[in-house]
Amino acid sequence: VDHARNGFDPHEILTDWDVGEVSIDAQGRRVREWVVTAVDKEVEVAPGVMFPAWTFNGRIPGPTLRCTEGDRLRIVFNNGSAHPHTMHFHGIHSWRMDGVPYAGLVQPGGTFTYEFEAKPFGCHLYHCHAMPLKRHIHKGMYGSFIVDPDPSRHPDAVAVAESRLLGSARNAEWQEIMICMNAFDLNFDDENEIYAANTIPFAYQQKPIRIERGRKLRIYLFNITEFDPINSFHIHGNFFDYYDTGTTLTPTLRTVDTIMQCQGQRGIIEMDWSEHEPGQYMFHAHQSEFAELGWMSHFEVV
Amino acid sequence: VDHARNGFDPHEILTDWDVGEVSIDAQGRRVREWVVTAVDKEVEVAPGVMFPAWTFNGRIPGPTLRCTEGDRLRIVFNNGSAHPHTMHFHGIHSWRMDGVPYAGLVQPGGTFTYEFEAKPFGCHLYHCHAMPLKRHIHKGMYGSFIVDPDPSRHPDAVAVAESRLLGSARNAEWQEIMICMNAFDLNFDDENEIYAANTIPFAYQQKPIRIERGRKLRIYLFNITEFDPINSFHIHGNFFDYYDTGTTLTPTLRTVDTIMQCQGQRGIIEMDWSEHEPGQYMFHAHQSEFAELGWMSHFEVV
Amino acid sequence: VDHARNGFDPHEILTDWDVGEVSIDAQGRRVREWVVTAVDKEVEVAPGVMFPAWTFNGRIPGPTLRCTEGDRLRIVFNNGSAHPHTMHFHGIHSWRMDGVPYAGLVQPGGTFTYEFEAKPFGCHLYHCHAMPLKRHIHKGMYGSFIVDPDPSRHPDAVAVAESRLLGSARNAEWQEIMICMNAFDLNFDDENEIYAANTIPFAYQQKPIRIERGRKLRIYLFNITEFDPINSFHIHGNFFDYYDTGTTLTPTLRTVDTIMQCQGQRGIIEMDWSEHEPGQYMFHAHQSEFAELGWMSHFEVV
Ligand SMILES: [Cu+2]
Ligand SMILES: [Cu+2]
Ligand SMILES: [Cu+2]
Ligand SMILES: [Cu+2]
Ligand SMILES: [Cu+2]
Ligand SMILES: [Cu+2]
Ligand code: NA
Ligand code: NA
Ligand code: NA
Ligand code: NA
Ligand code: NA
Ligand code: NA
Ligand SMILES: [Zn+2]
Ligand SMILES: [Zn+2]
Ligand SMILES: [Zn+2]
Ligand SMILES: [Zn+2]
Ligand SMILES: [Zn+2]
Ligand SMILES: [Zn+2]
Ligand SMILES: [Zn+2]
Ligand SMILES: [Zn+2]
Ligand SMILES: [Zn+2]
Repeated sequence: VDHARNGFDPHEILTDWDVGEVSIDAQGRRVREWVVTAVDKEVEVAPGVMFPAWTFNGRIPGPTLRCTEGDRLRIVFNNGSAHPHTMHFHGIHSWRMDGVPYAGLVQPGGTFTYEFEAKPFGCHLYHCHAMPLKRHIHKGMYGSFIVDPDPSRHPDAVAVAESRLLGSARNAEWQEIMICMNAFDLNFDDENEIYAANTIPFAYQQKPIRIERGRKLRIYLFNITEFDPINSFHIHGNFFDYYDTGTTLTPTLRTVDTIMQCQGQRGIIEMDWSEHEPGQYMFHAHQSEFAELGWMSHFEVV
Repeated sequence: VDHARNGFDPHEILTDWDVGEVSIDAQGRRVREWVVTAVDKEVEVAPGVMFPAWTFNGRIPGPTLRCTEGDRLRIVFNNGSAHPHTMHFHGIHSWRMDGVPYAGLVQPGGTFTYEFEAKPFGCHLYHCHAMPLKRHIHKGMYGSFIVDPDPSRHPDAVAVAESRLLGSARNAEWQEIMICMNAFDLNFDDENEIYAANTIPFAYQQKPIRIERGRKLRIYLFNITEFDPINSFHIHGNFFDYYDTGTTLTPTLRTVDTIMQCQGQRGIIEMDWSEHEPGQYMFHAHQSEFAELGWMSHFEVV
Repeated sequence: VDHARNGFDPHEILTDWDVGEVSIDAQGRRVREWVVTAVDKEVEVAPGVMFPAWTFNGRIPGPTLRCTEGDRLRIVFNNGSAHPHTMHFHGIHSWRMDGVPYAGLVQPGGTFTYEFEAKPFGCHLYHCHAMPLKRHIHKGMYGSFIVDPDPSRHPDAVAVAESRLLGSARNAEWQEIMICMNAFDLNFDDENEIYAANTIPFAYQQKPIRIERGRKLRIYLFNITEFDPINSFHIHGNFFDYYDTGTTLTPTLRTVDTIMQCQGQRGIIEMDWSEHEPGQYMFHAHQSEFAELGWMSHFEVV
């Protein structure tokens, strides 16, 4: 796969947090602004296989929007595609900002600005909600939306909240990555022929993700796979704690190695590799078919 | 869809708790009795589309049986259908009362009385368990079975238990609705062509459910969808707490916007709309196909 | 089904814990050693229906390996099959011992010894991880891997940990069984025609599992069903506590009657029958199709 021609690289997508343009408003509140553009684009999803995608900012998944609980968010959405689209955020907001056919639908050439407060903290997502929904989602219109907890709002769990706050000293003790479980229906028969972590099948098998034993690992994981009822994440040789939706500061599940998500679900995985022998450790869907069709990846623990 | 001809209206089914006929037995215990009749019936499940259903009391889902933990329950089941049927309750009871082929199967024209104590408290269901199971379930033979907690048995959580007890002052502070996730295989090829909340596709999109911001919202949700491995509930613009099976007084999951259930699973959703702008908020399955085929609904928050 | 010809009986598989050969090493640590052999074998999976299986030790599921947290484990794996295979354990270990194509793959006639410490405690599994994964798993190459907690490592929950420790007095108060949810694709079209608890469809319906009311019941459950996204366990007339992955000493879910697992997931079910009327109680998948094709079982509560 020619990542340069695609305009995005799955290895960069792991960590390219997009924190927007930050300013302070008249009330002294922090404001973050992003400009996101819908773009129709041929994407090479497997060697020589071009997929006629619809994208946010020319990439799949779209930009990883990251902010802090309580921020004022402004997402200027320009529709450069030939089809109407929206940005629907999983988060708390008014129906006016919901990005659905009756609120925030943008015609080709049009623009809309979604504005809301960042809440609740957690691991969320956004996706197009134009109709037909399955086609717009499956075409590639989705991305990660991460709201870090504001430690000052969580006096009983300040250290935990700080560890999740991008840019803090405690957060620097963690290696963080974002993984989107997605798939592609190449012949438009409502069945997927390709599965992946972050779009490109086997990308992290061919070139493993480097994991530092000296820092703990946090994964922001979401599932947007269309046409299949669930997807899953399984790690080899290790276990993790899981925070369903990332909206709590204590784990939902402790010491597991396999979790499943239906479409639109997501969560935070926390893992410790400090006592492991360096080497390659697989992670993949525990649906064998998905693993064999591309959702098979490796960590290179160093 | 002609609700009058069907004999039931999805908007009434949201709240028509059937508490049975209440009496006190010789030991001073509260007894509830219901008479439920199996009826074969053509049901209009989409405009002009008639489905040859088998029903409890001529409606899909059947009556919402609601009682209190510890009640003595008596369900007189008359089979007015041309096929043998049962009422199998998810709950604690003797095998004699289980409503399976070897206990409580009722031939056409016959009757059986299921008797057991209401336990455990929670959000349960009942369904026919005659064979072949998938055909009897899919034909429409299921309903909600809600057991409210008895506050006197939960001294550490009296207020929470009271808030779930129908008729109590604390319960009146909540708006409560019942939603059944179901589907219909119109051509009997073991795949569903229609999905819905409470049987009629898009019923709550065409006429949204009115949600009062001044009261909290509690949803008794169950999934009886046949032929698909899971179904799910996603809310727009808001988050909720989830009580798996409704059998606890503390939430299983806090602050989520999407949960999934396999067939026979159920739970209680609690949501607060008090700070939201009035307007329309979607809720639907986050399987796009299900949403597009009818399991798409709206709240009108007022 | 001729269990003698198959060489294994689903009723014996419920409880035939294989604790290996125990010794003490130079450092005073307990060592357990097993010899496991891959064998190609025709297995009668339904009356008169022979399935060309690949097995561990000539049985499906393979031996139930049971040990205690902290034990040194040594599994000598001999490949007597005509195909390359591995034993991949869900557990904490080095990549060198992972049983994947690049570590621990054994050619026909070859051998490999997997060595690692038993951790974390829980209800785990092992399976072949040769490629193509779905074929090797589906052929029958999987088994249960149970790690009992070491009570001395859990000072805050000694009694609970002891109750899980095979051979302890507190463990004798429990009736324990192992159930594997599996399925078979008889015509190799990537869809299952047969579903079961422990391989043989309806085995526990035709001859129910005897449950003693005087002891509590603990079930070590895992799902290895290929080709279907999830499987589930539903009990009739009773409820249970569920420990996801079995890696905690407090329940993940309390008082439920239905749980689902994707492939590779597993957990511990704890149930009390002491107050139930003796008789037959069903348990089965709550996917009707699975139940009707064999994953339908009975408890005979005595
Ligand atoms: Cu779109
Ligand atoms: Cu695996
Ligand atoms: Cu029936
Ligand atoms: Cu949505
Ligand atoms: Cu193999
Ligand atoms: Cu059932
Ligand atoms: Na396809
Ligand atoms: Na990949
Ligand atoms: Na159909
Ligand atoms: Na509806
Ligand atoms: Na098949
Ligand atoms: Na069976
Ligand atoms: Zn594994
Ligand atoms: Zn969504
Ligand atoms: Zn694997
Ligand atoms: Zn949404
Ligand atoms: Zn059921
Ligand atoms: Zn939606
Ligand atoms: Zn049941
Ligand atoms: Zn596995
Ligand atoms: Zn049943």
